[in-house]
Amino acid sequence: MKKVYNFNAGPAMLPVEVMEKAQVEFRDYENSGMSVMEISHRGKTFQKILDTAEENLRKLLNIPSNYLVAFLPGGATLQFSSIPLNLLQKEEIGAYSLTGVWAVKAEKEARNLGYKTTIVFDGKEKNYTEIPNLKEELLPENAKYLYITSNNTIYGTRYSQFPKCKKIPLIADMTSELLSRKILVEDFGYIFAGAQKNIGPAGLTIGIIRKELLEIPKKHVPILLDFKVYFESKSLYNTPPTYLIYISGLVFEWCLQRGGLEKIQKTNEEKANLLYKFLDSSKLYYAPVQGENRSIMNVVFHLKDKTFEEKFILESEKEGLIGLKGHRDAGGMRASIYNAMPIEGVIQLIQFMKAFEERYYK
Amino acid sequence: MKKVYNFNAGPAMLPVEVMEKAQVEFRDYENSGMSVMEISHRGKTFQKILDTAEENLRKLLNIPSNYLVAFLPGGATLQFSSIPLNLLQKEEIGAYSLTGVWAVKAEKEARNLGYKTTIVFDGKEKNYTEIPNLKEELLPENAKYLYITSNNTIYGTRYSQFPKCKKIPLIADMTSELLSRKILVEDFGYIFAGAQKNIGPAGLTIGIIRKELLEIPKKHVPILLDFKVYFESKSLYNTPPTYLIYISGLVFEWCLQRGGLEKIQKTNEEKANLLYKFLDSSKLYYAPVQGENRSIMNVVFHLKDKTFEEKFILESEKEGLIGLKGHRDAGGMRASIYNAMPIEGVIQLIQFMKAFEERYYK
Repeated sequence: MKKVYNFNAGPAMLPVEVMEKAQVEFRDYENSGMSVMEISHRGKTFQKILDTAEENLRKLLNIPSNYLVAFLPGGATLQFSSIPLNLLQKEEIGAYSLTGVWAVKAEKEARNLGYKTTIVFDGKEKNYTEIPNLKEELLPENAKYLYITSNNTIYGTRYSQFPKCKKIPLIADMTSELLSRKILVEDFGYIFAGAQKNIGPAGLTIGIIRKELLEIPKKHVPILLDFKVYFESKSLYNTPPTYLIYISGLVFEWCLQRGGLEKIQKTNEEKANLLYKFLDSSKLYYAPVQGENRSIMNVVFHLKDKTFEEKFILESEKEGLIGLKGHRDAGGMRASIYNAMPIEGVIQLIQFMKAFEERYYK
Repeated sequence: MKKVYNFNAGPAMLPVEVMEKAQVEFRDYENSGMSVMEISHRGKTFQKILDTAEENLRKLLNIPSNYLVAFLPGGATLQFSSIPLNLLQKEEIGAYSLTGVWAVKAEKEARNLGYKTTIVFDGKEKNYTEIPNLKEELLPENAKYLYITSNNTIYGTRYSQFPKCKKIPLIADMTSELLSRKILVEDFGYIFAGAQKNIGPAGLTIGIIRKELLEIPKKHVPILLDFKVYFESKSLYNTPPTYLIYISGLVFEWCLQRGGLEKIQKTNEEKANLLYKFLDSSKLYYAPVQGENRSIMNVVFHLKDKTFEEKFILESEKEGLIGLKGHRDAGGMRASIYNAMPIEGVIQLIQFMKAFEERYYK
C-alpha cells in the first residue's frame, strides 16, 4: 500500500489503527456474520455501539450531566438552519461573529429563514485573518445567542480563548477542531461539529446541548431539526447513519487510548509549532495569520513567489503529500493536521518544503 | 464466518459481492493509499464515484433527462418535511394516502409545518392490510400533489399498480422497494428512498425529481431541504455522506451485473411467491394481506397459535435466520427479502418453518 499523508481539510485522514480494526470486522462484526452496516438500529448490538460511543465522547470532553449528546444526520450546514429554528422567536435576534465563510453562511441562513440577526464582528476586510475578543456585555439586549465558528478551516484561525457568556448561550461550530484540544463544555450552550475532520466519515454531526435549551417554545420546525425531538430520542427518532456512528465510536476509543484530550492537544500543538516555526524562519513561505489565534488544525501558508505554487503542489503530491492546495477563498496552501496526522507526516512535509525552497528559491 | 440470513426490515443485508469488494479496497481505494472515507468530496476521485453512481442509477431506472437525481443526507423522514416546504403554498393542500405509519408521519409533518392536507384514503381500521385504488379526478381541486408510500414495510403491502396522475405530481416514498422492480419514473413527480433497504447503508436518501418542480416559489426553507439548491448542486452543496454514496454506487453496479431491474424483479417475485405459496398452504402460518398488493419485499405472517411466537424467534435465530420478529404495530412475523437476500435464504426459511410446524403443531 502506497504511503501517503493526506493534508486535505476534510474529509480527512482517519487513524490507521481505527481503519485497520474497521477493515477486519467490516463483514463480520463480533462474530455475528453481519456487518455493522447490516444490523438493525433497534437491536442490542447497535444500541451498545451507540451507548459506548456516547459514553466515550462524554469521557473525552468531560460533558456535564445537564448536557445531552446526539449523533445528527447530515453535515454541519443543517445546523445553520436548526439553530435559529430552535432558539429564536421571530422578534428576537441571533448575534453572529463573522470570522469566515462558514459563519457568514450560518448568519445568512438565519435571515433566509426569516429571523433577525446582528453582526458583532466582521473579519472580511482583513480576509478573515483575525479573531475578535468578544464581550457579552457589548451584545444588543435582545440577542438570544452568540454564534461563533471556533476554528476557521479555510483561513487557519481559531479562538484561542472563547468569549464568556453568562446570560445567553454561546453557540459554537467546532467542526474542524472538536476533540483536538480541551474545552470547557459548560462555557457553551450548544456545540456542534461535522464529523469529517477529527471524528469520523462525512455525513454525521455531533451535537452537545445544554438541556434547558430544549424547552424554548417554537413551531413549524422540521421534525428532524427539532432539538427536543432528536436529542430526547437519543439519536433514534429515525434510522440514524449507523455505520458512521460506529466509525466515530472507534475514533473516540482511539482518542482515549492515546491518553485523552490533554495528551492529544499537546501532540497537536507540537505538530503545529514545528510547522509555524519553520514558516516563520523561511524566505519562501509565510503564514498570513499571526499570534495566538493561529489554528493548530489548519496551517495556512503562502509562497512569496506565487509562480512556484503549481510546481509546489505537483511535487508534493509526487512525494505522497496530498491535499496541500489552499481553499480558493484564501489562496495559497493549507496543511490540515488533524488528530490522525502523525508527527512524522508534519516532519516529512517540512523536509519537502525545505528541499523545495533550496532547489528553486536560493 | 458464521452463515446468517438477515431478514431485518432495515438496515438490511447488503450483497455479498459488494461487501467483499468494499472490504478489499477499504483502506486503499484504487491504489491511492487512502480510503474513500478519507478523500476530498471536491476531488476527481470522488467526483468519478458520484458521477458513476448517478449514471448507473439512471440506467437501472431508465430515468428521463427532465429528472434530476440527488444523494440526500439523512433518512427519508427529512423528506416528509421537504415535500410540503418545497411543493406547497400555505393556502394549498397536499393529498395523502394513509397506507401505514410512514404515510401517517408524512401527513402529520406537513401539518406540523403549518400546511393543509387532505386524507384520500385511511387504512387504519383494517390495520393497513389494504391498498386503495386512487383516482386523480377524485382529489380536491386545490390539491397540489398526491403522496403515497409505495411499499409498506411494516404491514407487507404495496401498490401493485400506481395511481395515474396527469395534472398534479405523484410523490412516492419508495424507501423499501426502490430498485426491487421496474417502475416508470415519468409517472412520478418526486421519488425518494432511504438507502438502508435495497440501496446501501443507513444515512443516505436517493431523490429523483422532475425538474419543473424545482421552480415552485417558496420561502423560509432550510437551505439543505431546498430541492432547487440541493438538486442543482448535484449533491455537492455541502460535504455529502461520501462513503455511503460509494457503497450505494457499488450496489448499483451489482444490480446492473445481475441484469438490471427486469431480472431482479423476476427473482424477487420468485422469492416472494415461494414464501406466500407456503404460507397459504400452511396450517400454522397465515399471511394477513391478500391479493396483488402483497409486498414482494416484506412478507408479513402470523402464527395462528400466538403462544408459539417466542419459540419461533428463538429457534429461527439459532439456525442463523435473523430478524424475523414483526414490527410492534403489525405483530407476528416479517421476512424482509430485499434484493440482497438470495433465494437460498428464502428456501432455508421455508424449510425451517415447515420443520417447526411439524415439530410443534401437528
